[in-house]
Amino acid sequence: MRVIKSIQSLQRLIQKAKRSGESIGFVPTMGALHQGHQSLIRCCRRENKITVLSIFVNPQQFGPHEDFLRYPRPGRLDKMLAEKEKVDIIFTPTEKTMYPDGYQTTVIVGDRAQGMCGRFRPGHFQGVATVVIKLLHIVMPDRLYLGEKDAQQVAVLRQVVRDLNFPVTIRVCPTVREKDGLAMSSRNRYLSAIERNEAAVLYHALQEARFHIRQGMRNAGTILRRIRSRIQRQSSATIDYIVCVDRATLKPLVTVHGKVMLALAVRFGRTRLIDNILVNVP
Amino acid sequence: MRVIKSIQSLQRLIQKAKRSGESIGFVPTMGALHQGHQSLIRCCRRENKITVLSIFVNPQQFGPHEDFLRYPRPGRLDKMLAEKEKVDIIFTPTEKTMYPDGYQTTVIVGDRAQGMCGRFRPGHFQGVATVVIKLLHIVMPDRLYLGEKDAQQVAVLRQVVRDLNFPVTIRVCPTVREKDGLAMSSRNRYLSAIERNEAAVLYHALQEARFHIRQGMRNAGTILRRIRSRIQRQSSATIDYIVCVDRATLKPLVTVHGKVMLALAVRFGRTRLIDNILVNVP
Repeated sequence: MRVIKSIQSLQRLIQKAKRSGESIGFVPTMGALHQGHQSLIRCCRRENKITVLSIFVNPQQFGPHEDFLRYPRPGRLDKMLAEKEKVDIIFTPTEKTMYPDGYQTTVIVGDRAQGMCGRFRPGHFQGVATVVIKLLHIVMPDRLYLGEKDAQQVAVLRQVVRDLNFPVTIRVCPTVREKDGLAMSSRNRYLSAIERNEAAVLYHALQEARFHIRQGMRNAGTILRRIRSRIQRQSSATIDYIVCVDRATLKPLVTVHGKVMLALAVRFGRTRLIDNILVNVP
Repeated sequence: MRVIKSIQSLQRLIQKAKRSGESIGFVPTMGALHQGHQSLIRCCRRENKITVLSIFVNPQQFGPHEDFLRYPRPGRLDKMLAEKEKVDIIFTPTEKTMYPDGYQTTVIVGDRAQGMCGRFRPGHFQGVATVVIKLLHIVMPDRLYLGEKDAQQVAVLRQVVRDLNFPVTIRVCPTVREKDGLAMSSRNRYLSAIERNEAAVLYHALQEARFHIRQGMRNAGTILRRIRSRIQRQSSATIDYIVCVDRATLKPLVTVHGKVMLALAVRFGRTRLIDNILVNVP
């Protein structure tokens, strides 16, 4: 496994690999790797000759009062996990490398970045879109691996990649969950023992809603109220949002139909968690 | 010469060429080709195995009251010139191909897009930056050819390409001029005979300023006043701006020093012309 910090070194390496016709898969992360990342890496390794993993806690996607400074950075453990998973190249640039003095350019996204987390984290998705375009230019992958847990991020990046004609295939891997259903997240480690126990309600409430839809419930308002009341009943969480949207466009639905996503963001103390599930409504 | 309208076809062709290790040079244009473009094409052919020329009048870089609709589109003549110059591939997408329904993404540039033409053409450079990033993703060139006449565009694109880490070398070719010094431009054909005669004053005024700098004049205000008064004396033009800036950063200079650019935009009737010259001040 090669650990590379310099953009130019990586670009040279990639160019050489591409000239030999080797396929490149890319897993962008902010580190603090967990089984969700592991599943992305494994999927990437199956489909590509070379697997590139980036670890970069991108300041531009954090708001001024968010957890940029305390975001976990277990560098050595991350490298051990990557090594074990047979990642070929880890890219670990510094902030200065990615945003040198005089840096000025931003990629702005449209509607899909406005609702849901966009409402609560202004600027977040333009930070994500910009860093991912930069990383795509550095890694030039054939395939990009994203997690279904970050559903809005996936929708935004699909839009950006398509709009800007970047030639890459986006692969989305299913959310990996703890035994009690909590979606794996680098932020779970912030939770106290009590919060950690309570957090399982998120997935249970989403599952219950899916059950109701399958039983014939079609009114989105009713479904969302059920999710909300269960979370409020069984936890101390503060709800940022719970939505029922079209899976591809993220447009809110009044009556559920087609490919539906139920998504939510809630806060346990200072820890903000997101989750979502998909439901196919015939 | 192959004429290609589809993004996917071009991307497939390019991918094949790149796998064979062939170098790709790219000349983006809005058509209405003249000797300035010809010089870019020739420079591109000398340095690359494959020369790609794009012809696309990009609506996103025109303001609502600008000349998008009347911009010249002599398609057949352009193709003949490209053929004569042995261009390998012409890319001529439609507006719908480049901006399909639901298109939403924009590349925003910083300071360099604000002054000069940016003041008079709000949104122009973000339109340019966005379409060029799209075209770079489609053509994936090793080298990008731009004309020195569009000096602010060059500065903006240098910034965007560097900030977003796109792996391409930017080559800037000198402005090609008519016998009387008028910079070649697709917009020159809008000029009436009288305006065309008067327009030569732009280059003469810039040259005179360079002469004064070489003679020791260092006060930017004085130099700019000289240029302004000569243009006003010898033409009917309306001046948008005349500036004396650092060539790389486009920051205005009070005292000329280092690598200096004198640049201007003036209007003859509805026709807006730009020009610039460089001066090395020891």
